[in-house]
Amino acid sequence: MAKQDNRYDIVIVGAGPVGILLSLCLSRWGYRVKHIDNRPVPTATGRADGIQPRSIEILRNLGLKRALMAYEPAKVYDVAFWDPLPGGKGITRTGNWPSCPRFIDTRYPFTALVHQGKIEKMFLDEIEKAGTVVDRPWTIVDFENNGTDAEYPVEVSLKCLDTNVIENVRAKYLFSGEGARSFVREKLGVKISYKDQISFVWGVMDGVVQTNFPDIKTKCTIHSDSGSIMVIPREDNMVRLYVQIASSTDPDWNPRKTATVEEVQAAAKKILRPYVIQWDRVEWYSVYPIGQGIAEKYTLDHRVFMGGDACHTHSPKAGQGMNTAFHDALNFAWKMHAVESGFANRSLLESYEPERKQIAEDLLAFDNKYAALFSKRPPSAEEVGNAKSNDANAEENEFVQTFKSSCEFTSGYGVAYDPNVINWSPSHPAQSHLFGIDGVKLVPGRAFTPTTVTRLSDANMIHLEQEVPANGSFRVFVFAGTPQKSKKALEDFASYIEKEKSFLSVYRRPDIANVSYFERHNPHSKLFTLNFIFASEKNGVDMQSLPQIVKDYHHHIYADDIPDVRVPHAKYSAHEKLGFDPEQGGVVVVRPDSHVACIVRLVEGSGTVDALNAYFNAFSSKPLGQGPGSHL
Amino acid sequence: MAKQDNRYDIVIVGAGPVGILLSLCLSRWGYRVKHIDNRPVPTATGRADGIQPRSIEILRNLGLKRALMAYEPAKVYDVAFWDPLPGGKGITRTGNWPSCPRFIDTRYPFTALVHQGKIEKMFLDEIEKAGTVVDRPWTIVDFENNGTDAEYPVEVSLKCLDTNVIENVRAKYLFSGEGARSFVREKLGVKISYKDQISFVWGVMDGVVQTNFPDIKTKCTIHSDSGSIMVIPREDNMVRLYVQIASSTDPDWNPRKTATVEEVQAAAKKILRPYVIQWDRVEWYSVYPIGQGIAEKYTLDHRVFMGGDACHTHSPKAGQGMNTAFHDALNFAWKMHAVESGFANRSLLESYEPERKQIAEDLLAFDNKYAALFSKRPPSAEEVGNAKSNDANAEENEFVQTFKSSCEFTSGYGVAYDPNVINWSPSHPAQSHLFGIDGVKLVPGRAFTPTTVTRLSDANMIHLEQEVPANGSFRVFVFAGTPQKSKKALEDFASYIEKEKSFLSVYRRPDIANVSYFERHNPHSKLFTLNFIFASEKNGVDMQSLPQIVKDYHHHIYADDIPDVRVPHAKYSAHEKLGFDPEQGGVVVVRPDSHVACIVRLVEGSGTVDALNAYFNAFSSKPLGQGPGSHL
Repeated sequence: MAKQDNRYDIVIVGAGPVGILLSLCLSRWGYRVKHIDNRPVPTATGRADGIQPRSIEILRNLGLKRALMAYEPAKVYDVAFWDPLPGGKGITRTGNWPSCPRFIDTRYPFTALVHQGKIEKMFLDEIEKAGTVVDRPWTIVDFENNGTDAEYPVEVSLKCLDTNVIENVRAKYLFSGEGARSFVREKLGVKISYKDQISFVWGVMDGVVQTNFPDIKTKCTIHSDSGSIMVIPREDNMVRLYVQIASSTDPDWNPRKTATVEEVQAAAKKILRPYVIQWDRVEWYSVYPIGQGIAEKYTLDHRVFMGGDACHTHSPKAGQGMNTAFHDALNFAWKMHAVESGFANRSLLESYEPERKQIAEDLLAFDNKYAALFSKRPPSAEEVGNAKSNDANAEENEFVQTFKSSCEFTSGYGVAYDPNVINWSPSHPAQSHLFGIDGVKLVPGRAFTPTTVTRLSDANMIHLEQEVPANGSFRVFVFAGTPQKSKKALEDFASYIEKEKSFLSVYRRPDIANVSYFERHNPHSKLFTLNFIFASEKNGVDMQSLPQIVKDYHHHIYADDIPDVRVPHAKYSAHEKLGFDPEQGGVVVVRPDSHVACIVRLVEGSGTVDALNAYFNAFSSKPLGQGPGSHL
Repeated sequence: MAKQDNRYDIVIVGAGPVGILLSLCLSRWGYRVKHIDNRPVPTATGRADGIQPRSIEILRNLGLKRALMAYEPAKVYDVAFWDPLPGGKGITRTGNWPSCPRFIDTRYPFTALVHQGKIEKMFLDEIEKAGTVVDRPWTIVDFENNGTDAEYPVEVSLKCLDTNVIENVRAKYLFSGEGARSFVREKLGVKISYKDQISFVWGVMDGVVQTNFPDIKTKCTIHSDSGSIMVIPREDNMVRLYVQIASSTDPDWNPRKTATVEEVQAAAKKILRPYVIQWDRVEWYSVYPIGQGIAEKYTLDHRVFMGGDACHTHSPKAGQGMNTAFHDALNFAWKMHAVESGFANRSLLESYEPERKQIAEDLLAFDNKYAALFSKRPPSAEEVGNAKSNDANAEENEFVQTFKSSCEFTSGYGVAYDPNVINWSPSHPAQSHLFGIDGVKLVPGRAFTPTTVTRLSDANMIHLEQEVPANGSFRVFVFAGTPQKSKKALEDFASYIEKEKSFLSVYRRPDIANVSYFERHNPHSKLFTLNFIFASEKNGVDMQSLPQIVKDYHHHIYADDIPDVRVPHAKYSAHEKLGFDPEQGGVVVVRPDSHVACIVRLVEGSGTVDALNAYFNAFSSKPLGQGPGSHL
């Protein structure tokens, strides 16, 4: 037992954005986590600050949105562009556009801004509630995947920076969330490949200002004859200014070039003329060089992993660092859980690097394209109008297309994972003519679209995409169409899902006999939550006549009877917005990180469940979908 | 100075719903509050629990909504009716309807349920932050409005129930929130008049149950051959059952009749047959007699006041007790503030009793009517459809009408104060042809309707009705129509409101020279916040060209450019939903408790400001609107 004490499921190094989200998930899901950080205390202020619309969804799914909003973050709905007036007369607003235009279907069409210290604090409070404490100031001094212990193959040496005491632990996994200077990455010999080889020195200053500049509470990019600046409104009457101090494209490029607070303020005063600005106080100031680079590998052995800034660094302007880190962490967390819970083959972990590295590459490409887009000219009013529009017929020139994909990307809804064993495509091992439904707008690899429906048990109006919390379960959404039309198909679905070799039966809870009466999400299996949405008014569904296995998900049976402004003429808004025929319905499997996995037709007979079994069988550690039927 | 120490602006007796809301407002607004409660500790659990849609708005306006929602209250969206099946075969659902149907325009179409202890706690935390601590266990033993001190005319004797120490204090006001057994009311000799003279004994039980009764998470009234019961879902998997144990209409009426937990459970089991129910645990159980009564007076001298259960008691079924108490407290708080801040004549306090007593009378009348409505028959499907509808042309029989007014009442939006010096009507002292605008749907005395607009300074999408917090200020909403059309009218408005005798100038802040740059709500006067809403897209308003006095409210300048599902064809949803011509606009004065005060046309010349001056002059302690003009 004493020996057992230094064995952990995972060692997480670093308590920045990627480390805290990973630590929270795994601690909550029952893993033994060793989490260290080399700073004596958490971030006090400053640093990363922008939380994208899609990240707000992720935080809500983790139960953290209320804590975030309690900080009263500044909310950026709009970006304004300021350019020089001719004749040295200062600057003028030449355009503006929504930071998350209406064509992006999100509940949170804004970026929320609070400093990283507050974000870390809300995670750390919850991590502690889940039983993990971040040890500080501790650092990693050595590690080796030596396989001495087959179950805990990774040996890690940690050192307390206060006492110099060394602690050796064994772990199933080691995760580096160390930031740009990663000991783990260096020891592994993983190189950073620099895109375009452009580097920058940035000055960033958070402070409280008084000014007559009218857009001080709006995100702005300002080009003037005296230089450029980016303005980001912050919580507590603060504003952040980004000033580019040097670029490797400068003739006198010096990566050690710096600037004092006073120099940056003087520069800002010049740039903002004819408006005046003065500082009440400066809360945080930093100058840092940034190279836009991506680690060539995120893991070498699928035991030692990296994420966040350890894998990708880029300009802070796009506000993507923390958000990309969150996605890295969530992506790794559920896959490790799927493997360690005995559900998925170990090879599932091989999808972490390609999925996340591709997004980092998109990010860097975007970063450059975004800059180029604006250096040419501001958008015209007509182009802004077209770009904001929801109307698929609006004319789209290259400018508008780039703008749209930029907005999708900065909002976080542009994260689109390629086809692989999790994201179904025609080349997936699971083959059935029931995969894919014409007209359905959901795309495997992309986030599940928000819809609002009525829960039958308590008539509550709910946000369907948030109904299953981030607990590592796959979400199976059965859009059950009209109750009369789909009665037989639903009965067959219930019947075949009860067969011995179905995904639900094979992975049923070992404690199924003792599951609480109040269990809402996982009555049968810890790995799946079933949801049933009927194209019907609330009173049109007879709960009592549903198959028992459906009734067991009493918290997840819904009527699709809430109007949606995005499909104003729809009778069954959720079905129709997603593109389902409201009579036929269909089944959507959503990954534990809320990305769509596959879409299957809902038909009479065994076909639908056969297709789902085949889908999960592609990465299941136990065979699914064969053998004689028997009951759950 | 030692003598000064026992002088308070107000002594509040009782820390139940009415006392805590009053204490919070007055403590925050800078008053010296002595607040006592005779219980040694706050409510632990049980008691009142239902917070209406309109009360949720009030809590949000006090900054308490996030704390409320953090308790994860049960939300009641629907009420189901169960009735006996013929032949003793148990019960069946005969109907259901929304508890807050769509014709009621609210952001929170549900009742939130958490026990009174949690609600008290969130108030007590904030009261303490505002500098007041509730002394416990203390009681009131004597009081007298003896005028010995003209400024603090009320002498109050308080006694500590732990030590028997007596403390004598002087106060400007004494407020009894003591509940049904009020020492203050008895000493004043105020009688309770009992409506209909019907009394009841109720048993109420909060507990965690397991049942196959399908509507256990819905509010239900159940009539069976074995008796009647009301089911209210609660937070934390609890359910509340109300059982009527005795009624004064019973032949063997005995107000001391009681029942044990086991008896109530046995009764519930019989009533719910054929469904089964069993208790995991009982959290709270109480039996109490209720007489439906109203105090004849709420004050005798406008120094000693009463509110909450001290003034009105009624059946708990309608879920109105706590909500009515909140309204009592808010109504008194802002009026006392208006008087004590030097703004309003003391006679303004005379409106507290008639406004609040009328609502208590409406409540008792409603309580009886509501009961009668259901004892006859459940509503038909068609009636429910008509009643839910937003369509003004739907046929309305008496049943539907009663239902609609019932829903309005239970949601809190039925509170409609009669015309008086605050609620303008043609008999108001202020006379101008500019009062009242044809087509405008706002009614003086009723709550201001929710609308969503875009704030110009930061492009945030905001809820207009919540933009000014409950800080005791009147809110002046200038619906400024189209900027081009209303330019001159708005310039004149700005010009005349700057004149020496305008309401804004006469009551300007004495510290106006030192007002913070970041002041959002009260740059000129602590008593008024001006808001300007333009019928325009965000980019159609040139902030720079607005009059300086308008620009001073930079946090309160809005564009009416957000679609609203309730007026799907409107271009300027807020203007059009409220009934304003989007070209002309108009001005709405809203009381500090969010009830509409008056509506005035926005015209060129001095007329609009003249009308507003005349309106406020009706209760202003200083003359408004006369004399030569000069600048603020």
